[in-house]
Amino acid sequence: MINTLYLPELREYLAENNTAELREFCAALHPARTAEFMEGLTAEESWRVLHEAEILVRAEIFHYLERSKQVEIMEKQDRDEIATLIAALAPDDRVDVLGGVPSEVVDDLLTRVPPDERRDILRLSAYPEGTAGAIMTTDVARLTESLTVPQALDELRRQAEHLETIYYIYVVDDAQHLRGLVSARQLISAMRRPDTRLADLMESELVSAVATEDQEEVARKVARYDLLAIPVVDDERRLLGIVTHDDVIDVLRAEATEDAQRIAGVAPLEKGYLKTGLFTLSWKRGMWLTILFFTALFTASALRLYEGRLQQWPWLVLFIPLVMSSGGNSGNQSATLIITSMAVGEVRLRDWLLVLWREVRVGLMLGGLLSVFGLLVTWLITAGDEQVQLQPFAVLVVPLTLVLVVTCGAVSGSLLPLLFKRLGVDPALMSNPFVAGISDILAIIIYMNVASLILSWTAPG
Amino acid sequence: MINTLYLPELREYLAENNTAELREFCAALHPARTAEFMEGLTAEESWRVLHEAEILVRAEIFHYLERSKQVEIMEKQDRDEIATLIAALAPDDRVDVLGGVPSEVVDDLLTRVPPDERRDILRLSAYPEGTAGAIMTTDVARLTESLTVPQALDELRRQAEHLETIYYIYVVDDAQHLRGLVSARQLISAMRRPDTRLADLMESELVSAVATEDQEEVARKVARYDLLAIPVVDDERRLLGIVTHDDVIDVLRAEATEDAQRIAGVAPLEKGYLKTGLFTLSWKRGMWLTILFFTALFTASALRLYEGRLQQWPWLVLFIPLVMSSGGNSGNQSATLIITSMAVGEVRLRDWLLVLWREVRVGLMLGGLLSVFGLLVTWLITAGDEQVQLQPFAVLVVPLTLVLVVTCGAVSGSLLPLLFKRLGVDPALMSNPFVAGISDILAIIIYMNVASLILSWTAPG
Repeated sequence: MINTLYLPELREYLAENNTAELREFCAALHPARTAEFMEGLTAEESWRVLHEAEILVRAEIFHYLERSKQVEIMEKQDRDEIATLIAALAPDDRVDVLGGVPSEVVDDLLTRVPPDERRDILRLSAYPEGTAGAIMTTDVARLTESLTVPQALDELRRQAEHLETIYYIYVVDDAQHLRGLVSARQLISAMRRPDTRLADLMESELVSAVATEDQEEVARKVARYDLLAIPVVDDERRLLGIVTHDDVIDVLRAEATEDAQRIAGVAPLEKGYLKTGLFTLSWKRGMWLTILFFTALFTASALRLYEGRLQQWPWLVLFIPLVMSSGGNSGNQSATLIITSMAVGEVRLRDWLLVLWREVRVGLMLGGLLSVFGLLVTWLITAGDEQVQLQPFAVLVVPLTLVLVVTCGAVSGSLLPLLFKRLGVDPALMSNPFVAGISDILAIIIYMNVASLILSWTAPG
Repeated sequence: MINTLYLPELREYLAENNTAELREFCAALHPARTAEFMEGLTAEESWRVLHEAEILVRAEIFHYLERSKQVEIMEKQDRDEIATLIAALAPDDRVDVLGGVPSEVVDDLLTRVPPDERRDILRLSAYPEGTAGAIMTTDVARLTESLTVPQALDELRRQAEHLETIYYIYVVDDAQHLRGLVSARQLISAMRRPDTRLADLMESELVSAVATEDQEEVARKVARYDLLAIPVVDDERRLLGIVTHDDVIDVLRAEATEDAQRIAGVAPLEKGYLKTGLFTLSWKRGMWLTILFFTALFTASALRLYEGRLQQWPWLVLFIPLVMSSGGNSGNQSATLIITSMAVGEVRLRDWLLVLWREVRVGLMLGGLLSVFGLLVTWLITAGDEQVQLQPFAVLVVPLTLVLVVTCGAVSGSLLPLLFKRLGVDPALMSNPFVAGISDILAIIIYMNVASLILSWTAPG
């Protein structure tokens, strides 16, 4: 829902060129709220509003605008003013936004950005997408270990003026090698002991990330160790920057979305759904649909084997979808439970026997439950069917099949993700088509054999 | 995988009662790493190791132990020592752990905990699970607005000694009403202007949460505004505590797991998979399996309508699973894409027409792709079937059905989540059974009608 609360006023101020009110609007709220209220404006209008904000506030509000609007503003508005905006953005944000701007515009903008920021942009954009380097910011408080507490506070005060945050202060040697970490809390606690040096105060056992490390690995470290930020270093342990908690939340959310898409058989989209081109979208879905199609083909071949029996007992056809979907649903439930439990580290490979034993029992209970409904349903649906009426045990075919199919679905659905994990393949990626295919084929084989067994044994005459 | 690197040494130190080495082990690493290395130990052994750590480190390592081990230690070890440990734990952590301990043990432990901590525990545990109050911590830096910068730093230094973090410092009036926020960065930057009062420095436009607010809502606010922590207030805006970024990450992760489980038709588990009882697990899956079973029942009824035609053209039976699963898979893909895009706020209700138009085109492309395979497969599977040989257009039944079924699946899969959202129902919860049911029934109706049309028109003689 677009928030249209302030839209009429904003448009009025713009028409009247009422700079005082626009300036007031930009300054009054949290920048994220301000950006929300601007959602209904065009890129052109948004830029005119932002123009009235003081430069640091302008950069903050800009950070919260939708990506497409950010890119449009950068492309179309006055290049020198945009260069000033770029210099004011957080180092990781500006690299993100510039990634969406055509390269000839970026080249032109870069010539107008101050040399320090330009170097920083070029360095950060050199890291491949998906690495720690690509999401880190270079805005980080650095102090040398020989400083005393008052010197450190003084130096920090100087750095704080152009830093966003100083919750963690990193201690480096002269060659910028990461030596340790001091928190603002520790520094303030130590104010009464002015002779203390940072080297005595700092924590030197640090969790850090290498710039080329996978961003998901980095996010997991931050989550595991409850960190606010993680230092990013190069191969020689020189401090390059930090990845902060807000980027970690973004990575973890993107990862969860990707997993959900993989489970549903969609290769993860790089951009949002609405921004992905139709052909890309079709390709990312078509791949899996094709694989699933050929998996389903096995069911057609399996049915072909039993064509004779289906013609002999045509009422069996009615329950094919019911039997298959019960097995598939049960398998899908188990697979998702195991995949999500593995993702949070609760279920591990060594638990496979425990998982198997649980799923056999749960499968039998669930199958038992469905078989009661299956019995009722067979009675109802085949009420007028002579074949079924003549064979008193015929009504047991579907219930008995359901017990076996649901149990097999649960067992295969739970063991396949563990197997894929063991083989080093992403379980979220591979489990779905295999679970669906295996449970479908099992369903048909079980159904036909249970039917043959019961109907041949009890055939009248 | 359990990390067994240090297990032999740890067991040896325990056997020898080598307190020096055990103390060294506890102090050397990040507490989370130490806890990892202790995973292979029993609760009893873990407690003996922890015993050698200094109390604050002991509390930190304890925080990272597995929940079941934490509970076992609290239940079985010396009550007075556990009470000391409880007092040293973070306020939100201890309430979490005590939630798993039998209430008679909690009652006994509470009598041994210092009165301040006891009151705090009782107050926090009064908030229902899933609210901001239940995940907040009461460890928060509070300063009054009349303080000058040097006075504030001095007061903060005093408070910092027993606080975990001071990245955000909250400004309150005498009745503890939340007035504003000062960051450590602002305070340090202002050190040179000693006459500045907090009232002039503080940010008073704050994003806050009410204690009874849903934890997911709170987590979304923190993620939306890139906060490190969010203040929690009561109905009269008195500061009660803060919810920190690490708890937010936990909530967001749990939410993603719940959504994935809902999409797969499992009512979200409250505990982990392995810790959920078999009956609870069966109940949480059985509910949905039953609903899905009765949805699938409609397919049996639909097939019953077409029984005559299936007996007339028995080869049609072979492709029932293939046609149904192609429609279901396509619908499942669309539903998951829309659900995940709505979760991150990219797709909104007002986009429904755009979504419809995209899905029609993607559906036609995907259906077209599958129909090519469908044609090949019909030829292959029905190679020896006289009926099919005699009717040259019979091979077109499956391909044409696939185009329609895949498109209908994509459209219904994408629109149903939007519809549920519009009705105020959780799309992740409701979409799966409806998408599956509707696409299955559509698949059968489309298949049978396409078959009738083609086969009756082109019937030989």
